[in-house]
Amino acid sequence: MEKLDYEIKNIVGNILDDYGKGKTIDHVEIFAQPDAEIVKDMIAKLMKIVFPGFFREKTYRFYNMDSRLTVIIEDVVFNMNRQVAVALMQSDAFKDKTEEERLAAAEKISIEFFKKIPKIREYVETDVKAFYDGDPAAYNKNEIVLSYPGLYAITVNRIAHELHLLNVPLIPRMMTEYAHSKTGIDIHPGATLGKYFFIDHGTGIVVGETTIIGDHVKVYQGVTIGALSTRGGQNLKGVKRHPTIEDNVTIYSGASILGGETVIGEGTVIGSNAFITESLEPGSRVSVKNQELNIRNSEGKSVNQQNWFYII
Amino acid sequence: MEKLDYEIKNIVGNILDDYGKGKTIDHVEIFAQPDAEIVKDMIAKLMKIVFPGFFREKTYRFYNMDSRLTVIIEDVVFNMNRQVAVALMQSDAFKDKTEEERLAAAEKISIEFFKKIPKIREYVETDVKAFYDGDPAAYNKNEIVLSYPGLYAITVNRIAHELHLLNVPLIPRMMTEYAHSKTGIDIHPGATLGKYFFIDHGTGIVVGETTIIGDHVKVYQGVTIGALSTRGGQNLKGVKRHPTIEDNVTIYSGASILGGETVIGEGTVIGSNAFITESLEPGSRVSVKNQELNIRNSEGKSVNQQNWFYII
Amino acid sequence: MEKLDYEIKNIVGNILDDYGKGKTIDHVEIFAQPDAEIVKDMIAKLMKIVFPGFFREKTYRFYNMDSRLTVIIEDVVFNMNRQVAVALMQSDAFKDKTEEERLAAAEKISIEFFKKIPKIREYVETDVKAFYDGDPAAYNKNEIVLSYPGLYAITVNRIAHELHLLNVPLIPRMMTEYAHSKTGIDIHPGATLGKYFFIDHGTGIVVGETTIIGDHVKVYQGVTIGALSTRGGQNLKGVKRHPTIEDNVTIYSGASILGGETVIGEGTVIGSNAFITESLEPGSRVSVKNQELNIRNSEGKSVNQQNWFYII
Repeated sequence: MEKLDYEIKNIVGNILDDYGKGKTIDHVEIFAQPDAEIVKDMIAKLMKIVFPGFFREKTYRFYNMDSRLTVIIEDVVFNMNRQVAVALMQSDAFKDKTEEERLAAAEKISIEFFKKIPKIREYVETDVKAFYDGDPAAYNKNEIVLSYPGLYAITVNRIAHELHLLNVPLIPRMMTEYAHSKTGIDIHPGATLGKYFFIDHGTGIVVGETTIIGDHVKVYQGVTIGALSTRGGQNLKGVKRHPTIEDNVTIYSGASILGGETVIGEGTVIGSNAFITESLEPGSRVSVKNQELNIRNSEGKSVNQQNWFYII
Repeated sequence: MEKLDYEIKNIVGNILDDYGKGKTIDHVEIFAQPDAEIVKDMIAKLMKIVFPGFFREKTYRFYNMDSRLTVIIEDVVFNMNRQVAVALMQSDAFKDKTEEERLAAAEKISIEFFKKIPKIREYVETDVKAFYDGDPAAYNKNEIVLSYPGLYAITVNRIAHELHLLNVPLIPRMMTEYAHSKTGIDIHPGATLGKYFFIDHGTGIVVGETTIIGDHVKVYQGVTIGALSTRGGQNLKGVKRHPTIEDNVTIYSGASILGGETVIGEGTVIGSNAFITESLEPGSRVSVKNQELNIRNSEGKSVNQQNWFYII
Repeated sequence: MEKLDYEIKNIVGNILDDYGKGKTIDHVEIFAQPDAEIVKDMIAKLMKIVFPGFFREKTYRFYNMDSRLTVIIEDVVFNMNRQVAVALMQSDAFKDKTEEERLAAAEKISIEFFKKIPKIREYVETDVKAFYDGDPAAYNKNEIVLSYPGLYAITVNRIAHELHLLNVPLIPRMMTEYAHSKTGIDIHPGATLGKYFFIDHGTGIVVGETTIIGDHVKVYQGVTIGALSTRGGQNLKGVKRHPTIEDNVTIYSGASILGGETVIGEGTVIGSNAFITESLEPGSRVSVKNQELNIRNSEGKSVNQQNWFYII
């Protein structure tokens, strides 16, 4: 055991030496980052605020709804003030300001954010309707709120997007990556989502930072709404790199729509696995020419196979 | 700080006003939904019951296995009774019944469900064998039970499917969506899975509500067994919209098999990325004609490239 | 209620009977498996050790860094000793050894593992740089460490890979499957990853056991680096079944690179959705011939569509 103690002492010594070598992953100011656990807790509480019929504690009664809501909102405001103030240290506009100034700015941001809650709820209400209308497997609307990953990811995006618009660093992305982790749906907080947004299944969906999506859009699993190329790296920061999807567009599973100048016109339907890098006029229907398949039967003979276009 | 208090009071007022507007996401009866945390806890305990060699507490001894098992089963039965009774409020057949009647029905359902445990275990035993035989990277069967997401998703489906067959609303889907969240594998509780079912890697797999899968079927990552179109929305409820996959079929990564009338005959092998919307006779082998690739070498010259069919 | 008690007694009896039937999922030695919760806790603490600027507790101060680090390392060493000793029971080389011999071997393994921490940190430092340079949406490097799933999955792989090289059974795979569950990125602990490895979005990525990846490689969502066929099952154990990817290769979303003899030469760029089963010489650029799309406009007329090659 003494030998082990000695070895551990050595190991600690070597690792501490290594910490002194000025790596990026070390020389970060320890109090300059939002706390992931608190961000997670804020999401859980914001879900209760957005869906008061679903996630509020069982002890709620309607007659004390007011005071319970006050308690929960005060809790989130308190945490948001502190976490946003910390995050602002990473913002060019605030890094030379005093802690007091950052806190004051954070308070304003929290208040502005909470003023958006009714708007967020207005949009989420339309999403629930879109999910129910779009999915024959939906038992009822409660099932959608209680178990559909697509609705969860959209709701977290709507919350994070408002913080993104208020120029809060880090926290919006931490929120959407938490939803990504839970759902497999990766929507950047910068993406703008219209009303009645429907995501089915969802795993593998990617929606990039500068995407703009209209109303009544439906997206299925494995769809990418992304950049044509990111080879420019940091030089492309702030450039519109992701498509614009107009109202009433349906994008079936596995399709990719790429490029900042790509505009998918209103009412377009894009079939499974289509790969689109140019704009489409309103009302287009895009089908992929069927794969040439070689189908052999059990005797090894090739069964003739016609080419056809599929749209699902 | 007084200003902040005032602002919070305003915010709470506005949000409470908003709650009064009769949104779907609000006017839900608060006690009418199963509790997600309890459902999660039931899954964890049911896993212990299905795999007693793996998940039982370290304090278990064989001589007190009996009493420990009684304790854990009583716990799950107790919770299932209550959660199912709550869920039945959403069922047309039960919404006008008294709480007592719903509880009595829930008790019967729990008992029926627990009678299925040996059957569930019989099937899961075959799955573990299929995983070991199918994957050269499997170190041993313990590794499969301890770490393979595919086995976890299948086991949760087998549990949820029995509750689905007993017409329990909401809870089966909450269970499979919990597994979906953990594994990226989305199997609807309505789907019927045969014995010796093998899922490799798993992320992005979708198996729809009315799918029927035979014995000894293998499915790889990114496969969709889905509906041809859900444009009919709620009108398609209850219709068979998803394929039937017969025994001994292998479906490689990224393939899509779609449509309620599509039957994939016994022993068929479907290559990666194939897109199938029609039935295939038993013993078929489907290969996708290779993509026409343009391969340029480092000097920019096109390297000739033949078309061929691939099957993986 | 008496009836219910009677039913439960019956159920317990039936399930206990079922446990006696000698299923694989039962007759496992109860103390022969690592504890999933402790493995999870070790990952969390190892992340703190790898990124001391990010995950260390807020109470840390630089002047007591030494003693805090000692405490956390001692904790992980203690747990690793015990968990590795348990896992070694599954190793052919150790199953006939005494518990003492296994513990002594486990201690040596833990010490060897901790000596690799500076190397792991050296590699992860390069990954963070690659992520920042490669993604225009990255706000700063802190955001990458705090929220990018790709960096999390890579870091866990680098940790698990060192334990894999030390021939520890089960635990490395439990670690990478935990990361898979959180990120949708499935990298086998056997895979060898070079420096400056960049994963964007990540959901659906599969990297097989015997893959070798060089430096400065970029991989996007939905990419498979896998086996050509695993029909040989357990007979293929230990065989190189997965590709070698040389330095500076970029693989865009949805591409599949398959086969143990497939070598992707240095500097190659592989376009989205390409399906590659043969080696490519250095400097290749692979584009997929565009799909033949049928685009109809709002009047139902087919819009002419040229074939072209895309590379993204």
